[in-house]
Amino acid sequence: MNLPVIAPVHDADLAARLAHAIDTKTKPPGSLGMLETLARQAGLVQRTTQPQVTAPAILVFAGDHGVVAEGISAFPQDVTWQMVENFLAGGAAINVFARQNGAALQVVDAGVAHDFGPRDGLLDRKVAHGTRNFAVEPAMTAEQCAQALAHGMALVDALPGNVVGFGEMGIGNTTAAAALMHKLTGIPAADCVGAGTGLPPEGVLHKGRVIAAAAARHAHVSDPLNVLATFGGFEIAMMTGAMLKAAERRMVLLIDGFIVSSALLVAARLQPAILDYCVFSHCSNENGHRQLLEALGGTPLLNLGLRLGEGTGSALALPLLQAAVNFLDQMATFGSANVSGQAG
Amino acid sequence: MNLPVIAPVHDADLAARLAHAIDTKTKPPGSLGMLETLARQAGLVQRTTQPQVTAPAILVFAGDHGVVAEGISAFPQDVTWQMVENFLAGGAAINVFARQNGAALQVVDAGVAHDFGPRDGLLDRKVAHGTRNFAVEPAMTAEQCAQALAHGMALVDALPGNVVGFGEMGIGNTTAAAALMHKLTGIPAADCVGAGTGLPPEGVLHKGRVIAAAAARHAHVSDPLNVLATFGGFEIAMMTGAMLKAAERRMVLLIDGFIVSSALLVAARLQPAILDYCVFSHCSNENGHRQLLEALGGTPLLNLGLRLGEGTGSALALPLLQAAVNFLDQMATFGSANVSGQAG
Repeated sequence: MNLPVIAPVHDADLAARLAHAIDTKTKPPGSLGMLETLARQAGLVQRTTQPQVTAPAILVFAGDHGVVAEGISAFPQDVTWQMVENFLAGGAAINVFARQNGAALQVVDAGVAHDFGPRDGLLDRKVAHGTRNFAVEPAMTAEQCAQALAHGMALVDALPGNVVGFGEMGIGNTTAAAALMHKLTGIPAADCVGAGTGLPPEGVLHKGRVIAAAAARHAHVSDPLNVLATFGGFEIAMMTGAMLKAAERRMVLLIDGFIVSSALLVAARLQPAILDYCVFSHCSNENGHRQLLEALGGTPLLNLGLRLGEGTGSALALPLLQAAVNFLDQMATFGSANVSGQAG
Repeated sequence: MNLPVIAPVHDADLAARLAHAIDTKTKPPGSLGMLETLARQAGLVQRTTQPQVTAPAILVFAGDHGVVAEGISAFPQDVTWQMVENFLAGGAAINVFARQNGAALQVVDAGVAHDFGPRDGLLDRKVAHGTRNFAVEPAMTAEQCAQALAHGMALVDALPGNVVGFGEMGIGNTTAAAALMHKLTGIPAADCVGAGTGLPPEGVLHKGRVIAAAAARHAHVSDPLNVLATFGGFEIAMMTGAMLKAAERRMVLLIDGFIVSSALLVAARLQPAILDYCVFSHCSNENGHRQLLEALGGTPLLNLGLRLGEGTGSALALPLLQAAVNFLDQMATFGSANVSGQAG
């Protein structure tokens, strides 16, 4: 399949004009900290000194995981479809935060092990009723992986706006994400696993052993797409495709927590320049996320001890991105406001 | 003068009901991290399991400082009144962020060394045309300090809402704030000072020496109100009064950066229970703020490298407080959404 080719955002002339625009605003140079970095990045992504946030959307991808057969989750698999129902009814955390912060929410069935039937508000892109158990066999076929990537790209291609956040729901998916991290970064499995939705310490150890054994079983798999197909989930692969398309369209990507970051890791191994388009919403409390962010070279905006997923971190970070483009757009300059500059 | 007496928010029964309400929401227990802490706090402050954010306001207090004669600021004193004009024209960062996040902005002349004349949108509570130079003599008289505290209390008494953020503008006021911190915590002056609006390293050293010398000159001053009068600013004292009144009215207080925290330090030395009402918006890049937050026992929500003041951190943190009360108000419970709980 043809995946997007992502260009770096580098533009020295535009970067200089953005720096000038930021530094002439009525504030000490640098005093808006990471918001200045964000404003600069949004300008480079949108190729303008006047970036805007237009029709932001958050896509939440749901999928099930065969690896739950190994007993690696604190919650039963049914919670995946039950939470999709909760999204559709507007009662989940992501509904609350997306609504509050003005992001349109799209809920995607990427591969839930449940028949929803036709449902208002649910985008049916089901590749299969859950992946297979990667402890035993590859999670998906190459064809299924390609289908998931293609669905993700098409969904983003249809978005009207220029900012997209990513979220997910899938019992077992921190195990898939940790396996992707382990395989693609070489970080020991034990450092990639965490409590997920609430495993006790012995459960986390077990999860690490499941991943280490599966990695040994699939030791020959190394290229990013094969790794994705072998260990990933349909929701993760769909996010990888969606991210690549979003960067190709020069959108700003709001990266959520551990699982979303694992989808980005795959995308970045395919197209490293995608990282120029990413805003890292937060560092989650899931063990492994901090090291994964480091591997991606990302600096998170928020450190609130979140570990919920669903795109909640993306939704919560959106007002900060909005603040960054707003100060650049709306603040007076020292000249326009007749404010004296720094003394000699 | 009669200052408010602040009661702790402790209520074991309400705390248990809040914990139950938070833990039955459709999410793994604890997975909303600091937002859960915030929701609990807002409930205790407002004495309800259904806290709300109503008519949030940000008060920005401006004042000038005689200690600028010691050469402790990177910007000339005129910038104080020029920035007040910028606030009135809507062109400063705080205007942008308050507007974006739905906070009403009030600009208060607490003691700027400039005659504004009657101006729409400017609350004239000028105590004097700037403080005196505390390197030589007390910054204000006891009467002036009392007047500033009283103005602050009256301003908050007139607010319609239940959330108030604090901000300030005053060339030289990081020096006053650092002096208050040094005197009230005993932390060495050199650890309390920072670059302010942009002092070079040698300027920061000089600022520390000015404070250490002034502290020695006024060594006999020790009670919080005398310390405030000796080293503080009119905007700082007015914030201290405003904070005490806000806690007495059981409002949630959004604490901004270094200078606002120094006003809170004075308030907390007078009424330690005020800290129960405070949300620490952010940790600023001003050297000394982290230690000051530690002295106050405060955990900041944001770490964005801000060092602008004006209440910008308060305005940026407001959506997080809103998110905390919204999830508590709007999320479904496991029972109402028919979502399975954690496996035994």
